[in-house]
Amino acid sequence: MKFMFSRRIQNTPKSFIREILKVTENPDVISFAGGLPNPSLIDTEGIGKAASDIIKSDGRSALQYSTTEGYEPLRQYIADRYAKRYNLDVSADEILITNGSQQCLDLLGKVFINNGDSVLMEKPGYLGAIQSFSLYEPEFHSVSLQDDGPDTGELSSVLSEELPAFFYGIPNSQNPTGITYSDEKRKEVAEILNEAEVPFIEDDAYGELRFDGKAIKPVKYYMPEAGIMTGSFSKIFSPGMRLGWVCATPEVLDKVIIAKQASDLHSNYLSQRILYQYLEENNIDTHIEKIRAEYKKRADLMVKTIRSELPPEITCTQPEGGMFVWLRFPDNMSSMKIFEKASEKNVVILPGMPFYVDGKGDKTARLNFTNSDEEEIKYGIGVVADVIKELYY
Amino acid sequence: MKFMFSRRIQNTPKSFIREILKVTENPDVISFAGGLPNPSLIDTEGIGKAASDIIKSDGRSALQYSTTEGYEPLRQYIADRYAKRYNLDVSADEILITNGSQQCLDLLGKVFINNGDSVLMEKPGYLGAIQSFSLYEPEFHSVSLQDDGPDTGELSSVLSEELPAFFYGIPNSQNPTGITYSDEKRKEVAEILNEAEVPFIEDDAYGELRFDGKAIKPVKYYMPEAGIMTGSFSKIFSPGMRLGWVCATPEVLDKVIIAKQASDLHSNYLSQRILYQYLEENNIDTHIEKIRAEYKKRADLMVKTIRSELPPEITCTQPEGGMFVWLRFPDNMSSMKIFEKASEKNVVILPGMPFYVDGKGDKTARLNFTNSDEEEIKYGIGVVADVIKELYY
Repeated sequence: MKFMFSRRIQNTPKSFIREILKVTENPDVISFAGGLPNPSLIDTEGIGKAASDIIKSDGRSALQYSTTEGYEPLRQYIADRYAKRYNLDVSADEILITNGSQQCLDLLGKVFINNGDSVLMEKPGYLGAIQSFSLYEPEFHSVSLQDDGPDTGELSSVLSEELPAFFYGIPNSQNPTGITYSDEKRKEVAEILNEAEVPFIEDDAYGELRFDGKAIKPVKYYMPEAGIMTGSFSKIFSPGMRLGWVCATPEVLDKVIIAKQASDLHSNYLSQRILYQYLEENNIDTHIEKIRAEYKKRADLMVKTIRSELPPEITCTQPEGGMFVWLRFPDNMSSMKIFEKASEKNVVILPGMPFYVDGKGDKTARLNFTNSDEEEIKYGIGVVADVIKELYY
Repeated sequence: MKFMFSRRIQNTPKSFIREILKVTENPDVISFAGGLPNPSLIDTEGIGKAASDIIKSDGRSALQYSTTEGYEPLRQYIADRYAKRYNLDVSADEILITNGSQQCLDLLGKVFINNGDSVLMEKPGYLGAIQSFSLYEPEFHSVSLQDDGPDTGELSSVLSEELPAFFYGIPNSQNPTGITYSDEKRKEVAEILNEAEVPFIEDDAYGELRFDGKAIKPVKYYMPEAGIMTGSFSKIFSPGMRLGWVCATPEVLDKVIIAKQASDLHSNYLSQRILYQYLEENNIDTHIEKIRAEYKKRADLMVKTIRSELPPEITCTQPEGGMFVWLRFPDNMSSMKIFEKASEKNVVILPGMPFYVDGKGDKTARLNFTNSDEEEIKYGIGVVADVIKELYY
């Protein structure tokens, strides 16, 4: 039997990260490669109680089929939180619950991308998004990220030549770089995109994880109609329950609903009900506060250790939130080589290449700080420093 | 802002069923239109206990990110069950856990369909599959269903003109007709497809619901390499937890894994763990036996009532399992008209049209018997009979 696979799937290689994560299943390995929330900060007790309570009080409904859009009170909760945190005027009708925010990318790919269309990414950009969109066979273009957001000159220049289906970006604690767009950049990006009539897909997976707790107005605030936000409960509640959402105007959400229904009818309803029950029974802000404090401590330690242990030619970002630090190597170094050598010593970093749609990025690497404890951070960065010395000094 | 939506989404109308289901949210309505398992047959107590137990004993892991393929012991359980029930030689490596079996269709669409490719369906065919595959812009062809399965002459004749990406069918208690392929037809279909090198996507959502409990060997048994099966826990465990699976050889599953990862990383892991815990703590076969007995009673009552109340020109299938009875009307009647009139009297049937890729089917309708009690079945069919008399006699 000779199978005739689709072009899209033949052209999508197995994810490099996925292959790396297999290595890190070995408990002797210190992994800075993944993007896992710290399991000690998952409130298993609170979630267990919420699960028990909802199955007892409304099990037959919670375990039955449900609506494509998702549980209405949960959608209302999300809309209210947008109003409270971001001063965004959003109604429950503008929210659809997804299987984690990764599914938002698949649904939005379905809704916006014809094969051959341009899609605009940050450079470097989130590789999960590159992978999702790839299945709809776009041509990728990218705009360089500076320390305060996209290079807006480059953005304008790309838009003068291309009309992309959308621009996809992560203004808060970007994945992979950890940088956060300045308020000024957000306004500029919105103005440029509005002018060009290009929607902005604003991935806000890390907005709740800003260490100082202060919310910055999203890009959508400056382009309410053409702004589409995606959000996630993975980082503040439980990743394994795969709960995220799309927020868009009814015109766009109508199309997302069709895509969602064709994709899997609706998201896990029991999990939606457990989550809402949890939000009723607990103060999620107290819990988020704990996560922020813990992650800030680890981020600061990682940056400090990098600066003291690694040669000064290697620079790193100072994250204001999120889960990642970004390393930049000088021209004579290769992150793939450093990755290989460090892996032999059971410390895994993530080379930057898969985050670049143009195949570049070997002078960069992403380090996750949320899933390692302080000893592991110190020891692991030490190993990376040793490897670099061995290779280049 | 003028949004530029993709062709695929512009060409997919809102689901007719979805619109109907909105009407049926009114508790005064008797609905034969949906496909909901009976909520009284969901073991809320057992699931509640399993949820508590797993969150207590292994919550941090159950609530964390997990592998794309799904929880290994659950995949092994499914493989073992294939061996036990169907005498199929399948390993855990050939199983991937999905969000209900609807997601299998989306993933297989991604893996197999280039826009413009032929896709072969049963006529009438499952509308959820039509909707899923539509997003990959195929050309649909269909093969008539006879009382014992597809018209194999027609199948051969279509295959002499078209090389479809696959043939999709439901050999056990088909949706919408309720018919079951005979053993002979299964062999013939497998031979024809093997010869033409066309994969068979065998949707087995209802195999466990055969009223007599006797498993019939699947088509995949006769074409192990090119047979791809999809399965579901929605009908025997909980639909709201959205748990299904794809079973295919490693060559195909490798591609499905890539599609799954790009779509949503992995299925709800907590739900997978709750399900497996439930399977450890309970005898699912006893539970399935209860569902079968209850559904058989309702199916028999519905068929008996149809035969006694409706004019003899209207015929219906006699289901051996599953959830649906299929009505065939004579040429002078219209299922849309009957649907409209009956809806005014708060009884909803599902006109057959959306199950036909060629726009025909107005002489047919699908009736669900699992989600109405005996009184509702008798009363509802009585209303349909009254409406038909009003309209046509």
